[in-house]
Amino acid sequence: MDRLEVQGSRLLADLQTLRSFGATGNGVVRPAFSGTDLTARRWLADRMAEAGLTVHWDPIGNLFGLPPGDTPALLIGSHSDTQPEGGWLDGAFGVIAGLEVARASCEQGGPPVAVVAFQDEEGRFGGGVTGTRVWTGEMALADADASHDRDGQQLAPLRATVPELADTEFLPLSRFHALIEPHIEQGPVLDREGLKVGLVEDIVGSINLPLTFLGHQNHAGTTPMPLRRDAFQGLLAFAERLNRRFTELAGPATVWTIGQVALHPNAPSIVPGRARAHLQWRDASAERLQAMESAARSLAAEVAAERKLEAVFEPADYLAPVPMAPHLIDRLQEAAEARATGQWRRMPSGALHDASVLARHLPTAMLFAPSIDGISHSFEEDTEGADLVLVTQVLAEAATRVTA
Amino acid sequence: MDRLEVQGSRLLADLQTLRSFGATGNGVVRPAFSGTDLTARRWLADRMAEAGLTVHWDPIGNLFGLPPGDTPALLIGSHSDTQPEGGWLDGAFGVIAGLEVARASCEQGGPPVAVVAFQDEEGRFGGGVTGTRVWTGEMALADADASHDRDGQQLAPLRATVPELADTEFLPLSRFHALIEPHIEQGPVLDREGLKVGLVEDIVGSINLPLTFLGHQNHAGTTPMPLRRDAFQGLLAFAERLNRRFTELAGPATVWTIGQVALHPNAPSIVPGRARAHLQWRDASAERLQAMESAARSLAAEVAAERKLEAVFEPADYLAPVPMAPHLIDRLQEAAEARATGQWRRMPSGALHDASVLARHLPTAMLFAPSIDGISHSFEEDTEGADLVLVTQVLAEAATRVTA
Repeated sequence: MDRLEVQGSRLLADLQTLRSFGATGNGVVRPAFSGTDLTARRWLADRMAEAGLTVHWDPIGNLFGLPPGDTPALLIGSHSDTQPEGGWLDGAFGVIAGLEVARASCEQGGPPVAVVAFQDEEGRFGGGVTGTRVWTGEMALADADASHDRDGQQLAPLRATVPELADTEFLPLSRFHALIEPHIEQGPVLDREGLKVGLVEDIVGSINLPLTFLGHQNHAGTTPMPLRRDAFQGLLAFAERLNRRFTELAGPATVWTIGQVALHPNAPSIVPGRARAHLQWRDASAERLQAMESAARSLAAEVAAERKLEAVFEPADYLAPVPMAPHLIDRLQEAAEARATGQWRRMPSGALHDASVLARHLPTAMLFAPSIDGISHSFEEDTEGADLVLVTQVLAEAATRVTA
Repeated sequence: MDRLEVQGSRLLADLQTLRSFGATGNGVVRPAFSGTDLTARRWLADRMAEAGLTVHWDPIGNLFGLPPGDTPALLIGSHSDTQPEGGWLDGAFGVIAGLEVARASCEQGGPPVAVVAFQDEEGRFGGGVTGTRVWTGEMALADADASHDRDGQQLAPLRATVPELADTEFLPLSRFHALIEPHIEQGPVLDREGLKVGLVEDIVGSINLPLTFLGHQNHAGTTPMPLRRDAFQGLLAFAERLNRRFTELAGPATVWTIGQVALHPNAPSIVPGRARAHLQWRDASAERLQAMESAARSLAAEVAAERKLEAVFEPADYLAPVPMAPHLIDRLQEAAEARATGQWRRMPSGALHDASVLARHLPTAMLFAPSIDGISHSFEEDTEGADLVLVTQVLAEAATRVTA
């Protein structure tokens, strides 16, 4: 076929309908396996069937719309569950964009395109990206079933109340030749630069490394400054050097954060004897992540030695960077240049996605739409309708260029 | 009289007996108005009577031993209640030292010396230095009675169970011409310098000033470093400049502390939108305290402006420095030089004491004994017996030199 055209008004109308399930102000409350989530999925299943797709629910609740025939299809989609207090586009945009492209391709005789609404990306159960981890076998269904949400609800009995999930099977990954996950950026880069399309090259990796300085707890009135071994002052000195060293080591997209701090005993009149900080940094380069870890460890030892403190690291949590498939990025770039000339850029994803899991099993790519002011995981999350249509059009264009 | 001599063995034996009431390991648990506190006070009252002193309990529970006659006496003492997990000398040393000097003076025909065991210096009820504040009229007895401890126990019904506190009156301040409060230092200065006696010139004042930086809460993965408004990084930059500026402004005994910090939302993957720190500094000079406050306020504004943060101060809590009476310090110094030649120094007290309250009503001074490693408010608190005897001997020497 020559060109595949999406219908913007239909895309936006479907997005608004999906938004209505769990709508709360500008945001949406639609956690995985809630009543609104299941209602939304049944509505999505009806839309898929209407579009001429075969509806398939798998045991964990991932919902697929499959094109006719057995030829491996291009899979497009994201998740339709939300954060406890979610924005209306996080996940939802990717699902409806996939629906629109699969529908348009059915109507216009395009290539086989399937759509998916993954389940529990936000991790009400099982710790996150749960639907894709169970589908790909990275997590056993029994382990997901045994998990509980924050309120103590277990997954297994809840899943048993959904008739569509009984007597069904996981689709073989070979049913698809690639996954493209469209998503809002959830960051400010495209919005700040006035661009419309982000081509994700890598989903960044991260290292999480909790660090505690141990000093000596003392009376804040009677302990002279030169005799103090103040754990918080150690953390301050460390953080200042860390900023300088990480600035030297950083690439343009490297980020680092001290988001969590606890002092002990955390009282105004006591020199802190203990200061714990959660260090985190993210980058697409595994080598850079490691270099930053070495720097953090040696700076902590240096500060501890100078100040007669002890620096104690907890075990690090490593998440490896995930590169997207180069041939998919190239096709997406051609499509972006064709339909959004000069309005795209390559970039990393700083957040984890279902694509992080699928990339280990299928050629995978991601396409970003701008987020206004970079706001996400918030009721205020939003994107211009025209931008959502444009990204979906780029996606349709790419669908005609990507081959199995 | 010529020289007043104390009996060291009697002093130390009495200290060990007082320690036995509420002894827990090396420490003591004897909070105000507990059973052990009242038992200890009744034992103290018996020792006072044995020494020839007239026992007087006042309505809040301060226990006095008064010398014969109506001539205004020199009052010596401290508190006999302890912290919830207290050391054995905090307060207790001052009470027993006062008892020994008053007893020796009775025996040896010395000047009129009274002893006092103040009640609830540690603030189980009423917020601290409660016994002296009620005695001096700084706090109404009714307000103390209405106060509750941490477990919800109210003072009034507890006080009503103590028969000694019914049908009694507060002593007129004019019964005394001066107060000397002996105390352990609770800091490391004397111990580090190998000195035996501290002559307190001032009880330092303090400013407590909670400061919050407000930034913008963001996703720690998707928010590029240059676009962040990280409240904790603002606090780091502020604290680093504060250290440099306060070092310039400080005198030899100035101390400053950030002992309490809270980030919001305090999560590893979220750029902190809010960072609150409790700033505190102490010094004997009111002018210096004010200069430090001005510096803190302008540095916070400077950092906030540079980093697009907002710096919000809560109302400051001011505690004015309390100078000790110069003529008492001079007599104490003469006594120290006579009995502990070259082993004394003048110094500030970094901690609050009953003497802080009394100094507003009577000529007041304090005498410090060394604390091993500066440890206090801990079961590990300790001082060499010989040092306790020496400081008590200096006190007795001073009692013969101080005149009404």
